[in-house]
Amino acid sequence: MTSLKDLGEDSFIQQIIAQFPHSGIGDDCAVIPPWLITTDALVEGVHFIKDQIPPQALGYKTVAINVSDIAAMGGKPLYAFLAIALPSSTSTTWLEGFMQGIKEACEKWAIELKGGDTVGSQRDLFINLTLIGQANKVKYRHQAERGDTIYVTGPLGNSGGGLKALQKGVKNDFLIHSHYHPEPSIEKGIELASLDDVHAMMDISDGLDIDLRRLLKASQKGAILNLDQIPLSRELTQACVKEGWDPLELALTGGEDYCLLVTAAGEINAFPIGTITDKPEELMYLKGNKKFELHYNGFNHWTHG
Amino acid sequence: MTSLKDLGEDSFIQQIIAQFPHSGIGDDCAVIPPWLITTDALVEGVHFIKDQIPPQALGYKTVAINVSDIAAMGGKPLYAFLAIALPSSTSTTWLEGFMQGIKEACEKWAIELKGGDTVGSQRDLFINLTLIGQANKVKYRHQAERGDTIYVTGPLGNSGGGLKALQKGVKNDFLIHSHYHPEPSIEKGIELASLDDVHAMMDISDGLDIDLRRLLKASQKGAILNLDQIPLSRELTQACVKEGWDPLELALTGGEDYCLLVTAAGEINAFPIGTITDKPEELMYLKGNKKFELHYNGFNHWTHG
Repeated sequence: MTSLKDLGEDSFIQQIIAQFPHSGIGDDCAVIPPWLITTDALVEGVHFIKDQIPPQALGYKTVAINVSDIAAMGGKPLYAFLAIALPSSTSTTWLEGFMQGIKEACEKWAIELKGGDTVGSQRDLFINLTLIGQANKVKYRHQAERGDTIYVTGPLGNSGGGLKALQKGVKNDFLIHSHYHPEPSIEKGIELASLDDVHAMMDISDGLDIDLRRLLKASQKGAILNLDQIPLSRELTQACVKEGWDPLELALTGGEDYCLLVTAAGEINAFPIGTITDKPEELMYLKGNKKFELHYNGFNHWTHG
Repeated sequence: MTSLKDLGEDSFIQQIIAQFPHSGIGDDCAVIPPWLITTDALVEGVHFIKDQIPPQALGYKTVAINVSDIAAMGGKPLYAFLAIALPSSTSTTWLEGFMQGIKEACEKWAIELKGGDTVGSQRDLFINLTLIGQANKVKYRHQAERGDTIYVTGPLGNSGGGLKALQKGVKNDFLIHSHYHPEPSIEKGIELASLDDVHAMMDISDGLDIDLRRLLKASQKGAILNLDQIPLSRELTQACVKEGWDPLELALTGGEDYCLLVTAAGEINAFPIGTITDKPEELMYLKGNKKFELHYNGFNHWTHG
């Protein structure tokens, strides 16, 4: 009997798509003009370790990652729906902290919590947020064109560095804050979506390597990426030197940076890191102008299962 | 330290409402005209036992219970978003069956699956469906008025009887089918929502007792309910006689019947079962014209946690 450990998340998503040929699955959001709709599930022990993230940070992040999906297609968030399954052993203190984080994020981005479902769980804590946003102009991930420049809108690896600092017991407020309090790029997303030159757009949630491959697959294009051009924060670079971490590994596979990955025909106000080619799904890395093989893999939830 | 086992689900929902004073939490759906939006979470070991429900029935039911929430406010379903967290031990056969049930239900009610999120889980299986529907005229649960007749749109207890049959190993295809394949009242909901005489409406998901109390609380009204008038199917009555089950217990607390609970000033095409009074949250049962005390409690997910 085949079980899911033999398959990856993406292959299951493909299976869903095959069954529902007309669905909008594949982008950061579904588009029902003028609405953008996204839903994200967070599972204890897979996406977070309950004792290792303050409840308030988890609540904030639950909203932020969905806001980032809306921003990734050029929208602004409006309405949230929270479903949460809680083991009866959950402390009210934890829950109050979690809801405080949800509230903080909703107020920050002027989101109205319009509904939800609160149920019991036997063992694991499960969180699901559905967010509805609105957009005048929408960008998708499947419209990259040959010759486009590939951009990212912010430094990569800060969140991954923060997680590493937490795991290794390294004190680094900047990186840890980046990990706990990601900043979705709402204004930037709206600005970029309004430009005709911008062809494809998505957010970087699972890491540049895996997310760029998704963009390439959706667009049926390839890419050459110059690793020397990847923007890194000074704080991350310093911490990597000090702790002996590989900044490129964190930047490419750390995930959870929630800045935008964009391809555009012309020049835009962001960090250029490569070029779109016409070789479907072929991603080539260059470092010091030489071909570079990546030996680490992007975040895959199944390996945690 | 206080944990959730000391609290009920509803009191946590109250806590959420307190933090988000402008939210639409409390009805079956949130209303963002002309849209109705609902979200329901199903947790393994709490809402279903994985080995005790065929995956296809679980998929169907996941959609049906959300469709019922849309129907309960007078809408028809349009777009679904499915989030699912699966342990890596899940068999592909199970998953295919589950998706088949989702597909069957979506086709039956012309729902488009527009997006979702598929993630791993350590132990428990979680399912969350968000459904968007549309309504011309919306009814809420807080608008019951003194003197309204209370109606239900179908017989109660069939689903609870089906669950009991499954638990006791009693063969009863009709009741078991009712449990596995609930029929949301879409057309009936639209018809009733169009009537000015209809004041309050909701669906019966957790059992008439608990759901009527929710309606009374939202409306700040009371009710006198005549238990002799509660519609029961012939199949349920016969099974109860044969097996020595209490049909009233199943009808009042079994839940998952997904017919509509309605209060109306005039006569409507449904089963009248009682009257709305002006005594806030006071629910009185009559049986054989005598006051009757209910000694069983409605379904509470926490007791399963």
